[in-house]
Amino acid sequence: MITLASDFGSPYPAAMKGVVRRQSDAELVDVSHDLPRGDPRAAAFWLRFVLPEFPPAVHCAVVDPGVGTDRDAIVVHAGDHAIVAPDNGLALPPARALAEDQPIEVFEITAAAPASATFHGRDVFAPAAARIRESAWAETGVDRDALAACPSVTPTDEYVDHRFPEPTVDRDVDGAVVVSGEILVVDDFGNAITNVPGDAVAAADPGDRVRVNGGDPVPFVETFASVPPGDRLVTVGSHGHVECDVNDGRGTDAFGVDVGDPVRLSFER
Amino acid sequence: MITLASDFGSPYPAAMKGVVRRQSDAELVDVSHDLPRGDPRAAAFWLRFVLPEFPPAVHCAVVDPGVGTDRDAIVVHAGDHAIVAPDNGLALPPARALAEDQPIEVFEITAAAPASATFHGRDVFAPAAARIRESAWAETGVDRDALAACPSVTPTDEYVDHRFPEPTVDRDVDGAVVVSGEILVVDDFGNAITNVPGDAVAAADPGDRVRVNGGDPVPFVETFASVPPGDRLVTVGSHGHVECDVNDGRGTDAFGVDVGDPVRLSFER
Amino acid sequence: MITLASDFGSPYPAAMKGVVRRQSDAELVDVSHDLPRGDPRAAAFWLRFVLPEFPPAVHCAVVDPGVGTDRDAIVVHAGDHAIVAPDNGLALPPARALAEDQPIEVFEITAAAPASATFHGRDVFAPAAARIRESAWAETGVDRDALAACPSVTPTDEYVDHRFPEPTVDRDVDGAVVVSGEILVVDDFGNAITNVPGDAVAAADPGDRVRVNGGDPVPFVETFASVPPGDRLVTVGSHGHVECDVNDGRGTDAFGVDVGDPVRLSFER
Repeated sequence: MITLASDFGSPYPAAMKGVVRRQSDAELVDVSHDLPRGDPRAAAFWLRFVLPEFPPAVHCAVVDPGVGTDRDAIVVHAGDHAIVAPDNGLALPPARALAEDQPIEVFEITAAAPASATFHGRDVFAPAAARIRESAWAETGVDRDALAACPSVTPTDEYVDHRFPEPTVDRDVDGAVVVSGEILVVDDFGNAITNVPGDAVAAADPGDRVRVNGGDPVPFVETFASVPPGDRLVTVGSHGHVECDVNDGRGTDAFGVDVGDPVRLSFER
Repeated sequence: MITLASDFGSPYPAAMKGVVRRQSDAELVDVSHDLPRGDPRAAAFWLRFVLPEFPPAVHCAVVDPGVGTDRDAIVVHAGDHAIVAPDNGLALPPARALAEDQPIEVFEITAAAPASATFHGRDVFAPAAARIRESAWAETGVDRDALAACPSVTPTDEYVDHRFPEPTVDRDVDGAVVVSGEILVVDDFGNAITNVPGDAVAAADPGDRVRVNGGDPVPFVETFASVPPGDRLVTVGSHGHVECDVNDGRGTDAFGVDVGDPVRLSFER
Repeated sequence: MITLASDFGSPYPAAMKGVVRRQSDAELVDVSHDLPRGDPRAAAFWLRFVLPEFPPAVHCAVVDPGVGTDRDAIVVHAGDHAIVAPDNGLALPPARALAEDQPIEVFEITAAAPASATFHGRDVFAPAAARIRESAWAETGVDRDALAACPSVTPTDEYVDHRFPEPTVDRDVDGAVVVSGEILVVDDFGNAITNVPGDAVAAADPGDRVRVNGGDPVPFVETFASVPPGDRLVTVGSHGHVECDVNDGRGTDAFGVDVGDPVRLSFER
C-alpha cells in the first residue's frame, strides 16, 4: 500500500497518483490533501494521529513550503512503515508513533531525475515512494535492510526534527491545576486542539469547570453532547489532546483562538 | 466492497480507512466525507440517492451528532447490502431504497472495544463494518443469515427512523397546482432541493411557470440550459425531487431559502 | 483503470462510482471533482496537465454546462488512452497531450439509455466509460480498433475543439521582452496561471524583474522560496506556464487578476 498526503488540495495530487501508478501496482490510498497548508508542524500532528491506524505501508507525505530550496528529501523507516517526505520535520512525529518503542532510521534520498522547481510532489516524492515500494517491500511491510540497500538512499543523522512544544503544568494557590500551552491545530469543525496531552489534566474530573485564557468557566466533559448545542466545552479529543470546542459550533470563534496562540487552562474545584 | 461516508471532512476519514484496512482487504470506496454536517436527515437524503447505484456492499455511514451519548450503533440489512451507522435515522431511508420491495432488518451492534467518547467512526463503526464484511459476505453480497449469526449483532425492533416530511398538494381557485413543502438539502451548486417528489407536480408541463413562496414566476423546465445563465428556474433533479435553482448560480441566494425553510410552489397555467 | 474527473464536488461523484462498479471491476481513481465549475476550457487545462502522468486508462471527464441540451457525448482515442466527455472542448487539449505525435480520433457516443436531464455524469458518461473499458481494453491500454467496433460509438469529424489562446510576444524600444496574454486558470493556492508558455519567456533569466499589467516590477524566479513570504513573484509553474504568485499568499489578490483577465508581462533588463 502507498498512502498519499499533502496540502495540495485539488487537482495537483492526481499527478502524483498517475506517477505512482506508472511505477507500482500497489494499492493507492488518499490520506488527505487538505493538510494545514505550508505548516509542516500542524501537518505532522495529523499524520501522527492517522498513520498509526494503517497497516504497514509506504506513506508519501508532502507539505513543503521550502520546495525549490536545497532542503533534502528523506525517507524514514519506522516499524514496518516508511515515510517519504521533505526534510522539514513533517515525518518525524508520525514516524515515532509508528515505531512505538523501536528505533527509527532516516535516509536521505539522493538519486533524483531532473525536477521542476515547484512540484516535487510529482517529480521527487511520488517517484521515490513508488521506487521504495517496489524495491523494499517484504512480507511484513517495508524491510529496513532492503530499504538501506536502495541505490538512491543513504543513511543520515542530520535531519530536521519537530517535537511539539511541551505545556507547563502548575497548581495555583488553591491547589487547582493550571496548564499553559498553545493551539497546535484547528480541525474542520473549528475545534481548537492544544499541545496539552490528556494525561496532563488527568487530575480533573468530568464535570469540573475550566477557564480558557481567563474567560468564563466552561464544563470539562467527555463528549460534545454533554452540553447543549451552541455551548462551549473543553474535552480530550480522540487524538489524546485537550481541545477547546463548541457543541455544533466553532471553538476557534467562541474562544477567540487560532493556531499558534497561547492557551491557559485554569481548572476549578 | 466497503464504502465510507461521513461529515468528517479531512483528515479524520483517513483513520477510518486505516482501521478498515487492518481488518479487511475489501475494496474501499469513498462515497463522501462532506455530507451535511450534524444533519442525519439531510445526509440520509444523499445516501438514499447514491447508495442504490452501487453493487452489493457494506456501507459505513457516520453522521453522528450524538456521539458519546447512549445512542446505539446499528447495522441494517437491505437487499444484499448492509449499512453500519449510528441509530439516529441516517440508515433507514437509504436502506429502504436498497431493499426495494423486500423487507429490511435492523440489528443492534452490541460488541464493542473500548471507544473514545468523540470518534466512534474510528472506534466503533469502521471496525464493525470490516468485521461484518469479513464474516457475512457471500457470493451475492451481504448474507442475512450470516449477518444475524455474528456474535456482535442482535436483532432489534427499536430504532430511530426518519421519513422525509410529506408535501401537501392542493389546487387553487383557478385549478392550478399548489404544493407546500420544505427545503430538505442544498447541494454544492446551491440548488435548493425540496421534499416534493417529481410526480407531485406531474400535472405541470415544461414551460409552465411557477411562483416560489409568492415571488415572481419562473420557468418550470427540464434542464438548466433552458434558461439564460443567471436566471432562476424550477426543475425536477436527478434525485427525483423538485429543486429551486439558478443556471450557473446559486438557487439558495436567488430564492432566499435554506435547509428547513418552508417552500410553496404555485404553478400558473 | 478508469479515472473520474468532474466539477461536481460532493456527493454526486459517488453515484458515478457506483454506476461504473456495477459494470466494471477496473480500478477506479479520482482525478478531481473540483475542476473549475462550468468552465470546460479551464478544466481542460488541468486535464492536459495531469492525465499524461497516468498509465493508459479510460478517463471519464465531466464538466458540462450544456447538460440537457443536444450537445453530443464523445470518446476520444489518444495514445492508448480514451477520454469520455461531453462534446464541449473539454477532452481535446488533454487528448493531444496524451497522443504526443500520434493522431487522435473522435467518436460520437450514440447509444444511450434514457437519461435524466441534469445528471449525465451518472446516466451517460459513467456507463459509457465502463462499457468502453470492458469492450475495448487490450494489453497495452485502449485498443483503437476495438473501440471503433463498439456498437455505441461512431467516428465523427465534427466536434468542439478548444485551443488555448496564443499570447503575443514583442520587444519594447529597449529590446526587452513584452508578452500579452491572459489568465487561464487559478489554482487552490491562488496562483494566477497564464496562457504564456515558459519558452515564450526563455530569454528572461532568473533574477530578472517583470512588471505585470504595468505594476511595480517583481522578481522572475524559479521557486517560491526565492522571495520572502508575502512577496510577489512571477515564475514558470510545473505545468510549463508563466504564473503570477505570492510566496505563502494569493497571487490573484496581490496582482488583482482573475480567470479571463488580460495580462501583460514587461521584462526589464
